[in-house]
Amino acid sequence: MSDSIDTFVLAKGFRAAATACGLKTSGAMAATNLDLALVAAAEPCSAAGVFTTNRVKAAPVLYDQEVLSQNAGDIRAVITNAGCANAVTGPRGMQDARRMAALTAEALDCRPDQVLVMSTGVIGRHLDMDKLARGIADIVSPAAQQGAPFAARAIMTTDTVPKVASRQVTIGGGTVTISGFCKGSGMIHPNMATMLGIITTDAVIAPDLLQTALREAVARSFNRVSVDGDTSTNDTVLLLASGASGVEITAENAATDKDNLPSAISAISAVKFTEELTEVCVALAKQVARDGEGANRLVEIRVTGAEDEAQAHTVANSIARSPLVKTAIYGGDPNWGRVLCAAGYSGAAIDPDKLSLTFGPADRYGDRYDTPAIQVVANGLPTSYEERQAAAALRSDPVLVTLDLGLGDAAVTVWTCDLTTEYIEINAHYTT
Amino acid sequence: MSDSIDTFVLAKGFRAAATACGLKTSGAMAATNLDLALVAAAEPCSAAGVFTTNRVKAAPVLYDQEVLSQNAGDIRAVITNAGCANAVTGPRGMQDARRMAALTAEALDCRPDQVLVMSTGVIGRHLDMDKLARGIADIVSPAAQQGAPFAARAIMTTDTVPKVASRQVTIGGGTVTISGFCKGSGMIHPNMATMLGIITTDAVIAPDLLQTALREAVARSFNRVSVDGDTSTNDTVLLLASGASGVEITAENAATDKDNLPSAISAISAVKFTEELTEVCVALAKQVARDGEGANRLVEIRVTGAEDEAQAHTVANSIARSPLVKTAIYGGDPNWGRVLCAAGYSGAAIDPDKLSLTFGPADRYGDRYDTPAIQVVANGLPTSYEERQAAAALRSDPVLVTLDLGLGDAAVTVWTCDLTTEYIEINAHYTT
Repeated sequence: MSDSIDTFVLAKGFRAAATACGLKTSGAMAATNLDLALVAAAEPCSAAGVFTTNRVKAAPVLYDQEVLSQNAGDIRAVITNAGCANAVTGPRGMQDARRMAALTAEALDCRPDQVLVMSTGVIGRHLDMDKLARGIADIVSPAAQQGAPFAARAIMTTDTVPKVASRQVTIGGGTVTISGFCKGSGMIHPNMATMLGIITTDAVIAPDLLQTALREAVARSFNRVSVDGDTSTNDTVLLLASGASGVEITAENAATDKDNLPSAISAISAVKFTEELTEVCVALAKQVARDGEGANRLVEIRVTGAEDEAQAHTVANSIARSPLVKTAIYGGDPNWGRVLCAAGYSGAAIDPDKLSLTFGPADRYGDRYDTPAIQVVANGLPTSYEERQAAAALRSDPVLVTLDLGLGDAAVTVWTCDLTTEYIEINAHYTT
Repeated sequence: MSDSIDTFVLAKGFRAAATACGLKTSGAMAATNLDLALVAAAEPCSAAGVFTTNRVKAAPVLYDQEVLSQNAGDIRAVITNAGCANAVTGPRGMQDARRMAALTAEALDCRPDQVLVMSTGVIGRHLDMDKLARGIADIVSPAAQQGAPFAARAIMTTDTVPKVASRQVTIGGGTVTISGFCKGSGMIHPNMATMLGIITTDAVIAPDLLQTALREAVARSFNRVSVDGDTSTNDTVLLLASGASGVEITAENAATDKDNLPSAISAISAVKFTEELTEVCVALAKQVARDGEGANRLVEIRVTGAEDEAQAHTVANSIARSPLVKTAIYGGDPNWGRVLCAAGYSGAAIDPDKLSLTFGPADRYGDRYDTPAIQVVANGLPTSYEERQAAAALRSDPVLVTLDLGLGDAAVTVWTCDLTTEYIEINAHYTT
């Protein structure tokens, strides 16, 4: 399936719209002046959400957690604004989040507790509720920009491109679509909160199964992206299921998810659904990493030969967070000592004498890339590699880094980007 | 006592020298071409050391740990080179570290296991033992540069200034000096290993007591500095005690450390000694943070009102590592949301509604600074502060940031620096 913005549509049963209500005032940070996005379902949906682990949680995060704990089987819409994070705003912030839902519910003729809200933007400022009220009135009118591509653009902050991904699972007589969009340029620009995502599906699925699937998919996608290690106050990924496909997702991992079953059986196992959902999330996550603030290149770090996935993730994350690794990649500099150094201080019980490091497409990539793989370290010692070739591998896009720990069979991939002077410039200057 | 390089001397019983042997070949990284430093004691010393926690440890680190485990009461010298870290060099690296000690021992007419070694420089390359042998022959000759100021310069890599600190404790008839120097520009430049320190004292003190004192002092000084969160393969701080003052350090926290005791009693409690040692280490640590790669300003982050020191340290460290906090300080931008955000994702169980944040000299600083203190957050909500004043507080040097957690009485201070475009430039380009 295509991840192109031009042909991007949500799953059956959902519509999207966007408008500009003046919350995103800074010209510098706005690639578009659209700043309000609506995703609305024709019928009540199942919904699931994962949220920031930051102790400082924005009001919309607290509000959504409350709604989903009570009403996850009966959701109608998600309303999202950019330009103001509604974070560190105290009781008034909670009132504003509730009012944002209530205004949307009124416009859509549903109950407030059927509406989820998301906000991204400056921390510590209150929402301009007058502007927001006018925007919500506008977004349900014919005057709004109609369609998911506009919604994907409206939630952008320092993002330079909108981020969308869709997948379909065809089975017997039914087809399930999973389609979503997100924003996130890796971090906060003038206090912009990072990562918001809305994923829609037309599967028939119960809220608890949906929540389990989302949690697993996010663990292997968005939670494996690091741009600068800062976790925002607003991170939210929502998943809405309209049921419009008529295809049911079942908890049993039965033979019913084989493609060659009679068309009468339109059911997909939750395992299969979670796999497809994970693919959508990974596609979105890689777009977030590639569009990291100031980034020139996507960096894919794979740690193999680990005792378990937790160990692999610990090591991979430490490498992905290292400013030195990321500045070396920016400079196209095969400073492999920095990769081993970051693995060494990760906290994982690695054995330095068993480490092997390869730049470029290692075995797993087959012939997807035509640059050669350059092994620079074998069993803890430098190989006699060509400096020039190693440098070339670090200047390709994506940059592929594979560290084998030599301890077991587990592997994890994480995505990040290079660290450039532009990142500093973007984040240093706040136009007050 | 002065921390001036011009008047810098080691404690009684030690001499220092430096020479250039050609290991530090890159003109770009060398503020001086001196690259070999010797600290030698007239008589056998007590010695203590703390080393990197990185699993990937350089050969000199492994060698020193071995020597100190067997011979900490009988050390004569420390030989240190810059330009090559002797890290990720396998068995040959260990042989080279041993030979570096043996050559020095021969030149000084002592045993090899009386010599400690330190290296800093490129990872993954072998020491040029011919150059090193000539350097060691030279450094004990009259042709060498004599004196601690030269030794402090010889161990520099991307450091822009040498870093020295001295303190004296006068007691009764005796005076104990603690005097040391270090290198560290916060991180690795073309794979430069970070932080080396040598501290000398003329106290009479047993190795185990010396080790305890050093461990405590380092925990409150060097371990509270972060420039970019990368922990090197070579970090080493050594403490040598010559005993030349005749003043004994006793484990008992007795009344004997009062200044008004008869001169016949020349003893200082280990508690008092550790306090003074900590002051020397803090003075050095702050110099490291201020000279962080590309840094414009020293940043002092103090977390107060914590349940315990561990909690305070967790929060302070998270703030000190945040690229967003550090780029905001670079830009003089009072983006306080980033400070709360970093506290929120630190992992500590903070309560967002109890946080208070002040830029500039909070109460604890008395009238040491003439800039005003600006409280920007009180009990989790923004105050009505003047944007201009808050920005001014972030443009002072040092930048003072105080976050009160409102949970208890514990407090911790950490030091870091702003994150600038120059940091990226320094670390991106490796002249191979």
